[in-house]
Amino acid sequence: MDWQAGPATLHMFKRVTIIGLGLIGGSLGLAIRERRLAEEIIGVSRRQSTIRKAMSLGVVDRVTLDIKEGVCGSDFVILTAPVLTIIEIAKRIKGVLKKGVIVTDAGSTKYDVVKNIEAIFPNGASFVGSHPLAGSEKSGLNFVNKDLFKDAYCLLTKTPNTDSKAFKKIKIFWRRIGMRVVSMNAKQHDKIISKISHLPHAVSASLSNTCRGIDLSLAAGGFKDTTRISSGSPELWKDIFLTNRKNLARDINMLKKELSKLETALIRGDEKKILYFLKKAKGVRDSV
Amino acid sequence: MDWQAGPATLHMFKRVTIIGLGLIGGSLGLAIRERRLAEEIIGVSRRQSTIRKAMSLGVVDRVTLDIKEGVCGSDFVILTAPVLTIIEIAKRIKGVLKKGVIVTDAGSTKYDVVKNIEAIFPNGASFVGSHPLAGSEKSGLNFVNKDLFKDAYCLLTKTPNTDSKAFKKIKIFWRRIGMRVVSMNAKQHDKIISKISHLPHAVSASLSNTCRGIDLSLAAGGFKDTTRISSGSPELWKDIFLTNRKNLARDINMLKKELSKLETALIRGDEKKILYFLKKAKGVRDSV
Repeated sequence: MDWQAGPATLHMFKRVTIIGLGLIGGSLGLAIRERRLAEEIIGVSRRQSTIRKAMSLGVVDRVTLDIKEGVCGSDFVILTAPVLTIIEIAKRIKGVLKKGVIVTDAGSTKYDVVKNIEAIFPNGASFVGSHPLAGSEKSGLNFVNKDLFKDAYCLLTKTPNTDSKAFKKIKIFWRRIGMRVVSMNAKQHDKIISKISHLPHAVSASLSNTCRGIDLSLAAGGFKDTTRISSGSPELWKDIFLTNRKNLARDINMLKKELSKLETALIRGDEKKILYFLKKAKGVRDSV
Repeated sequence: MDWQAGPATLHMFKRVTIIGLGLIGGSLGLAIRERRLAEEIIGVSRRQSTIRKAMSLGVVDRVTLDIKEGVCGSDFVILTAPVLTIIEIAKRIKGVLKKGVIVTDAGSTKYDVVKNIEAIFPNGASFVGSHPLAGSEKSGLNFVNKDLFKDAYCLLTKTPNTDSKAFKKIKIFWRRIGMRVVSMNAKQHDKIISKISHLPHAVSASLSNTCRGIDLSLAAGGFKDTTRISSGSPELWKDIFLTNRKNLARDINMLKKELSKLETALIRGDEKKILYFLKKAKGVRDSV
């Protein structure tokens, strides 16, 4: 069946369960509902207050605190949580997954997630790792947005164990959410994302820490932009950093070398080298 | 006379000359005109094309390519240019300055500018160093905005040689432009601004350079925000870096130490230290 060509009322899934009702989970609920991709959307959260808020905002149809009950009978399960929690959740739900279920996630690192979950899941449950490049330094249901994913990239990972039908369906799912899908293997993913997402976060946090204790009342746009992402959830980013630590440590080392080049040029008052450094950077940034 | 209390039609200055018609100079022209702070606004540029564009955009009343002609007879001169060029301009105009003239600048470093210009200017010409914390990675007249300075800070520098009447008038001028004025000495200025403006630029440029040669098509908001300022004018920033090189080199070294802390924690897989690092950064950023 081709879900892309079908009418909007032909649902891709009977029952979708979203585990984790934060910015990503809540926004996904709204997007799935608006695009009528599922007959029923179930939300799972650990917190009673989140459950109440999710219902009042209408991000899902039904909610539950009981993760097993939430997953039971669903044909599509989406795991949204910090990366290490995603793996823990997979362990807890493996026994109640319906035969033929497709499970995906929205974690920012993929090698550890995919490797672990493939080893955990029983036959009859297909896991496809996803990384929608959407989000914000803001977290929680207060910031949900049905268009959060629109026109952004979603990276899908494929392994020798990936079920090709499930992969195709997940690809169509993200496309119907409005995303541009790119597939790659999990190692490639973590290597690329280390540089363009995790390194900027590491740099942003390091800059904030360097400016600790000084009067920031005069901080203008440059400082604010460069440090904005360091305001993101430490718990979320701790897991990301831990599960991509080798790539990130190597990239931090490269960045330190760039900083050292500039530092040396400054100490020597080397006008030419400083100008070359800045021109090169502008060239890279202007190409984005 | 109190210009703040006076009616809008009582001009602060008879003739203002803005040297340099870029984003800052052009926006200042518009702001001065809108607030009727001068009877006449003269713009000086080295380029015929800029002269034409300035007239067609109406950022000033009259324009000239001849810097001496532009300054002659003015009671207020504003120097907008890369920092080292500001000092060169001061040398060129010192002979034609009207007695009683007030001169200010919009340079991002202050110690070198103030020290040099105070030594260059004749008696009867008062220089007060200004640093309006406004601007953008965009440069040139295409981006002029009469509200560029609104609600932003303007840092004024005071030295033992600063004429107190001129200082007071400059303070009122920036306030009427809509800025919040803070005064400090030039050394203090350069030290503070190194951390909250020049270091973010150095970091942003280093991050861009680290990501040189890789596919940036997947770069999302985090990368874009963190590297945005590295798109700024290399010529402008080269002068800023050179004239604040000691402070900046020291701050880059501090930042490298922060990065090393994180790098070590990653290599060791030290969950606690990574979390502490991220929490500390979030605390700093959230306080802005």
